[in-house]
Amino acid sequence: MALDPSSPIEVHGRKYALPKCPTVVVCVDGFDPEYLDQGISDGILPNMGRFVQTESFAVTAKCAMPSFTNPNNLSIITGAPTAAHGIAGNFFLDKETKQEFMCLDDSLLRGTTILKELSERGVRVAAVTAKDKLRKIIGHGLKAANGAICFSSEKASACSVAEHGVGDVEAWIGRPTPSQYSGDLSLFVLDAGVKILEEQRADFLYLTLSDFVQHHHAPGSREANDFYDALDVRIGRLADLGALVAITGDHGMSDKADVHGQPNILFLQDRLEEKWGKGSARIICPITDPFVKHHGALGSFVRVHLEDSTQANDVLRFCQGLAEVEIALLGHVAAETFEMPLDREADLVVIAKKNAVIGSTAAEHDLSSISGHRLRSHGGLSEQAIPLILSGPVKNKDLPTDGWRNFDAFHLVLNEAA
Amino acid sequence: MALDPSSPIEVHGRKYALPKCPTVVVCVDGFDPEYLDQGISDGILPNMGRFVQTESFAVTAKCAMPSFTNPNNLSIITGAPTAAHGIAGNFFLDKETKQEFMCLDDSLLRGTTILKELSERGVRVAAVTAKDKLRKIIGHGLKAANGAICFSSEKASACSVAEHGVGDVEAWIGRPTPSQYSGDLSLFVLDAGVKILEEQRADFLYLTLSDFVQHHHAPGSREANDFYDALDVRIGRLADLGALVAITGDHGMSDKADVHGQPNILFLQDRLEEKWGKGSARIICPITDPFVKHHGALGSFVRVHLEDSTQANDVLRFCQGLAEVEIALLGHVAAETFEMPLDREADLVVIAKKNAVIGSTAAEHDLSSISGHRLRSHGGLSEQAIPLILSGPVKNKDLPTDGWRNFDAFHLVLNEAA
Repeated sequence: MALDPSSPIEVHGRKYALPKCPTVVVCVDGFDPEYLDQGISDGILPNMGRFVQTESFAVTAKCAMPSFTNPNNLSIITGAPTAAHGIAGNFFLDKETKQEFMCLDDSLLRGTTILKELSERGVRVAAVTAKDKLRKIIGHGLKAANGAICFSSEKASACSVAEHGVGDVEAWIGRPTPSQYSGDLSLFVLDAGVKILEEQRADFLYLTLSDFVQHHHAPGSREANDFYDALDVRIGRLADLGALVAITGDHGMSDKADVHGQPNILFLQDRLEEKWGKGSARIICPITDPFVKHHGALGSFVRVHLEDSTQANDVLRFCQGLAEVEIALLGHVAAETFEMPLDREADLVVIAKKNAVIGSTAAEHDLSSISGHRLRSHGGLSEQAIPLILSGPVKNKDLPTDGWRNFDAFHLVLNEAA
Repeated sequence: MALDPSSPIEVHGRKYALPKCPTVVVCVDGFDPEYLDQGISDGILPNMGRFVQTESFAVTAKCAMPSFTNPNNLSIITGAPTAAHGIAGNFFLDKETKQEFMCLDDSLLRGTTILKELSERGVRVAAVTAKDKLRKIIGHGLKAANGAICFSSEKASACSVAEHGVGDVEAWIGRPTPSQYSGDLSLFVLDAGVKILEEQRADFLYLTLSDFVQHHHAPGSREANDFYDALDVRIGRLADLGALVAITGDHGMSDKADVHGQPNILFLQDRLEEKWGKGSARIICPITDPFVKHHGALGSFVRVHLEDSTQANDVLRFCQGLAEVEIALLGHVAAETFEMPLDREADLVVIAKKNAVIGSTAAEHDLSSISGHRLRSHGGLSEQAIPLILSGPVKNKDLPTDGWRNFDAFHLVLNEAA
């Protein structure tokens, strides 16, 4: 039986219709709804503001847990929580061997992605990321030989047609690769998306940014407003070029400092080792890579590996009593509750309150680089809220506006959009 | 082997030394740490402020979940989470029969209490509550014939020596029974405590108040400051009479209204019945009694009973996606995680975000009586923080200051106080 080439594709039990027009999904990293509200209020988001305030479909959704970047990008492109695709953090420890597994490319990814299935069905897919490591993961199954485009703005200067589907990117976009540590790294991604549409080089685009600005600047600050202003101009351009655009994000962002500007940090490994002895516990900060030793490793979700797993209940009760902790769960309970991969889980999961972060030991986190600015981070339940905005209306006027997840973005734009 | 009459008593696996001097534990209902911080800052808490700022032991602890009044009073007087004593809300539904069981007296209480064990060991115990229903529960095992005193300020006019250990309470205290709906109901409890100490009528006192003021007035408001000022005077008097005093609370209190003053309410039964049909779900609001039909039934923790328990996972995923929900858990997971009695648990537990409450149906909650004032309530993780203050130092200078629970109050005052 020949497959109807226009029939829906299926990924993790969900069906997706093929795009009927140029379609773009933008993942704005760190897109806390406060940036959207503030931006609309400050009048700097004419395009997204228009989508939110008219007949276009716009809701506040929730991201997957943990509210981190890689897990959520993978959830968005697979339409499923992390248990389906296997990526629930930047790295994990094998429970038995305690060996570290870093998520540096697609080798730890489980199953397929919507981008891959669309591409193999003949849809011209373009996936552009800010950081190259994410590009290696979400580029899974996207072959330049099939006409797919997949590159990062971080490595724009090293792109080739043979590998990335596009070469000489800097000349093509008209400016050099921006610094990794800039808002421009993200604007470059959107500029690439605009170019791709102008030149009609793809039918379906996934553009995913970086949260450099949101980590450093609060909603309403000049730097945040400049960034969102520039972002909104480009989103407007994508829509003006005739694309159907869905905008969402991977996670929100919260202020994690006290009234004096000092970061509220729980050094959990220090606390646990004080009580149970050196080597009794190892805290994993899956917001970033294991070798990152500064404030960048401080997020609101950590995993706890115990030397002696039989201590899990006692350690759990202790963690639950700590002021900075919102909730602590046994690993298998967290995996079931948040739909995370059980075999990559730890003994415990500990989630911080909205104004706090959790680190391993004070000695392991060099905080000199955050002196002078308020720490902003994510990972907890408090950073789950995320906008989900469509540039036009949906077919079903009675479509519920509650219960949406950011990983429903492809479903929204491919199945529900009018 | 004769029991050494001075040996420690034991309750739920923890030992407690007998009091060495007149000892008072005060449970200030709704004692959010913000009231303490604001009160010290506003200079209206000279006594508690002195305890917090000198060599006395003072920490921020966490209450038991759910952060409600009866569960926490029972936890405080048993030194254990709700799974031990069985009281995890004002009422519960039997999972099979769906019959309602209201916690109106000690018939649903499991096991003993520290007050009962102290009293049977010959310690003269006095337990004074604001509300009479709580008096019936915590009065478990306290017999006037054994010299125990146990009464409520609500029913002060109906006390007798034979039943309550003291009679003519209004004349004794010097004023009539205050209104249930007043701060004075709580001050009357403390005045009774002062009288009991002045007349040397008890060795160990448990004084537990009501949160009428905290439900209606934010920290720093004139009404809150007047109340805490009056509370602090009485606490100072208890200490001046030579008592060792521990002050804690049952739960905190949060503002649950939006920028316009409108309460943020999730009517969860309406939402679930929209999706799964009328009668598919029953939301229990265990913050109060089942017949309460106004804003008083709105708290940040509800239980969900499903007509069809096989739908639990689908309903769970839907609840997790709702904006007002901080976390939703399967009932048995919540029972394990929060140490609540499994056999009195529901299909699901749903906990609201700090600024929201959950109700059953819009039709069931008459909100006319809260128009004009901002809703304040509790029940969630966001109301777990609670002060735990001792009027003097502890024996062990290295006693950890983290990980304390409000239900460690009796341990603190009987075992750790210097």
